[in-house]
Amino acid sequence: MEFHPLNEKDIKRLKSMVSPDRSSTGASNLDLHSRDMSRHPACRPEVVIWPVNRREVSQILGYANQNTIPVTAWGAGTSLEGNPIPLRRGIVLNFSRMNQILDIREADFQADVEPGVIYQDLNHKLRHSGLFFPPDPGTQATVGGMIANNASGTRTVCYGSTKNHVLRLVVVLADGEVVEIGNRAPKTSSGYDLVHLFVGSEGMLGLVVEATVRLAGIAEEFASAVGTFPSVQSAGKAVFEIMRSGVDPAALELLAQECIDLINREQDMGLNVLPTLFMEFHGPTQRQLSDILEIVHEICLQKGCQEFRPGLDRAERDRLLKARYGLGEMIRRNHPDQSRIVIDVAVPVSAYPEMIVFAIEEARKVKTATAYTFGHAGDGNIHLVIGAKEGGPEWAEIDEANNRIVTKALAMGGTATGEHGVGIGKTKFMTLEHGKSLEWMKKVKFLFDPKGILNPGKMFP
Amino acid sequence: MEFHPLNEKDIKRLKSMVSPDRSSTGASNLDLHSRDMSRHPACRPEVVIWPVNRREVSQILGYANQNTIPVTAWGAGTSLEGNPIPLRRGIVLNFSRMNQILDIREADFQADVEPGVIYQDLNHKLRHSGLFFPPDPGTQATVGGMIANNASGTRTVCYGSTKNHVLRLVVVLADGEVVEIGNRAPKTSSGYDLVHLFVGSEGMLGLVVEATVRLAGIAEEFASAVGTFPSVQSAGKAVFEIMRSGVDPAALELLAQECIDLINREQDMGLNVLPTLFMEFHGPTQRQLSDILEIVHEICLQKGCQEFRPGLDRAERDRLLKARYGLGEMIRRNHPDQSRIVIDVAVPVSAYPEMIVFAIEEARKVKTATAYTFGHAGDGNIHLVIGAKEGGPEWAEIDEANNRIVTKALAMGGTATGEHGVGIGKTKFMTLEHGKSLEWMKKVKFLFDPKGILNPGKMFP
Repeated sequence: MEFHPLNEKDIKRLKSMVSPDRSSTGASNLDLHSRDMSRHPACRPEVVIWPVNRREVSQILGYANQNTIPVTAWGAGTSLEGNPIPLRRGIVLNFSRMNQILDIREADFQADVEPGVIYQDLNHKLRHSGLFFPPDPGTQATVGGMIANNASGTRTVCYGSTKNHVLRLVVVLADGEVVEIGNRAPKTSSGYDLVHLFVGSEGMLGLVVEATVRLAGIAEEFASAVGTFPSVQSAGKAVFEIMRSGVDPAALELLAQECIDLINREQDMGLNVLPTLFMEFHGPTQRQLSDILEIVHEICLQKGCQEFRPGLDRAERDRLLKARYGLGEMIRRNHPDQSRIVIDVAVPVSAYPEMIVFAIEEARKVKTATAYTFGHAGDGNIHLVIGAKEGGPEWAEIDEANNRIVTKALAMGGTATGEHGVGIGKTKFMTLEHGKSLEWMKKVKFLFDPKGILNPGKMFP
Repeated sequence: MEFHPLNEKDIKRLKSMVSPDRSSTGASNLDLHSRDMSRHPACRPEVVIWPVNRREVSQILGYANQNTIPVTAWGAGTSLEGNPIPLRRGIVLNFSRMNQILDIREADFQADVEPGVIYQDLNHKLRHSGLFFPPDPGTQATVGGMIANNASGTRTVCYGSTKNHVLRLVVVLADGEVVEIGNRAPKTSSGYDLVHLFVGSEGMLGLVVEATVRLAGIAEEFASAVGTFPSVQSAGKAVFEIMRSGVDPAALELLAQECIDLINREQDMGLNVLPTLFMEFHGPTQRQLSDILEIVHEICLQKGCQEFRPGLDRAERDRLLKARYGLGEMIRRNHPDQSRIVIDVAVPVSAYPEMIVFAIEEARKVKTATAYTFGHAGDGNIHLVIGAKEGGPEWAEIDEANNRIVTKALAMGGTATGEHGVGIGKTKFMTLEHGKSLEWMKKVKFLFDPKGILNPGKMFP
């Protein structure tokens, strides 16, 4: 699809659709919406608009569609694969002003929210209700961004990803049509499941302007433990055995020694610098949880665990989780001159030990690169951040290592992206991962968005 | 779409695609595939074919598409809304010969199956592994039929519906193209979610020839209880409070007094003839479960429970569940001269008490009709079976009661069908339930099946 630069009439017309303080063509605003938290090159939109309701979104999309202007939705800009970078310029719709929590129905474990709600704000609001919105990507992500991306995080191993927590959506389609899909019943077998088609579609099929999300009850009790292992392989084997045992962890994170070293340096945590599993369990009583911890301890010992430390208190647990979530930022800060490829493969858990060893060995082959390995191990998800000077000679090697790691994951029945989405960085793997079904995704895309104005340039190679 | 009767050449050609024992135009086979377990009028296909592999399915669909011949997939014929009745005749593909369990990967909690596998056979095969396939519609349903219908049952309140247990599908599209969608990773954010689009699409977008399903661990311990209440309303209020308390039942079934009476008569169960809740809880220890039963007992007492009987043993639990699942058949047997409308609405649980009282009152208005009320209460799902002579004067009244009940459920944010699917019987509610999104479902349908050969006449009014 060919897009033309906006002309003065377009800008004027678009600006007239919202109040004067809610659109901008200023350089700093265009810059702010030109890149996310990934390495992908910045690309400025031509105008940024902050809609406050679905009517405005509909009107803007109607105009954009009629005039073949690209529209990219913007949540918090925290994605890691260039997902909201407006590759073909045009309009960025920033949803931060549509951030109302419209209704919380505690009794039904449901909330209706606008897309710009930060999920942590929703959870803060829910704090006295005994409920929470479980998908936990760990950043200042908006619920709309999480839906676009089918985000997940540390809690997903137990509670599921965003996909498992969306019941109903109101979406504005490419031509401005407003459509409500799904309902508020706990279950339904009525009609084709368009809700799940939109979850994870990265703003390419339509834009979410309201969502009914499913909440979960906060467990009465939790128990956390840390285990250290002589090698990443032995830790990976412990992950597999823990998952196989059916103890159902509420978090099961792996951090390789270089990550522990970094956390120690940055946050003075005094952890053993060894491959480490952080695990958490939720349950109704401490009695039950200590039974579980015994099982897990036994498994870890069998796999060579050198130290198993149960009974972390809430503060310790929170510090560890925070450090885990801060890793990306710490790595960036420690290597300011580097660019980074973030691997996000997920494989069946039985393939996890082999996969993680393979990935680390591939990364090590690039002599001058730095590599950090961690991930939501319980989901078979591996993050491997390989850094080097972009454009330098090792960059091509990193890229080849990336290709080999993803190819291996796909061969093991896995996926190129467990949670970051396709965005720009994973586009090149889509044909290999999806084969002929990618053609059907493309047909679905052009059914909903015939002119291809929504987040163009993504997903399809 | 206009379809023409098959000619001799068609029949000959189709028969040549499979071995001679695997096609039939005999009257008894056509009859056997002319109706499911619903009241909907029988409609004979013109030929029944039993494929054994995807190549045959692909070849048959390719021919059918080229010659605009309707194709309806057949699992076990146990659906309740006419879902597999070949309304436009043509070909029925009976998948019972594609019933191989291809692979069980216990460590990954996954199995690969062909669509004709009876889910109970899968669970039987899994019995020593500590795993099971949780969606439990309670009949001899095939996994393929369950996927087509997004089936659910007593376990769904805790473990989810079929939708939550499908990771990957191989489907044959209308023109014979074989496409693999999804993967075997525990989670993915890669591409549009075509898997969930196919789950629940009632064989109208493509036919499943292989599925990777997600299994769950069997809980160490269970505890069951029965509570009787002075009214359905008080039982409904107890349901709401139990769900609100977060105790997470593994089954929460409501049976109105007429159902208990019927079960007593048919199976000599000696239950109190009062509105009854059957509940079950799963957990790691009996200690935990008795804590939960105490909470639930307290809630039931507050809502007027007259007798609360915990501690059912396995045999008693199984008899009760079997009786619950046998209700449909018992009702049929006891009223051989009647036809029945089966209501299957689901509403948010907070609306459950009001909804169930409304539904029963509406049914009572039809003086000469019989009505049986039960349902997967924990999911907000109500089954109300209203019976009378079809075509008689009360039939129109029943139909109007049905309309009012479904309309009320939709107004409360619910759905016309919690688990039976749309089929023939719920088609008339689709416009009201889905509004403009029904048009998008139709567009999706004709994207995947431009000639409309797959299960024609369903879903869209």
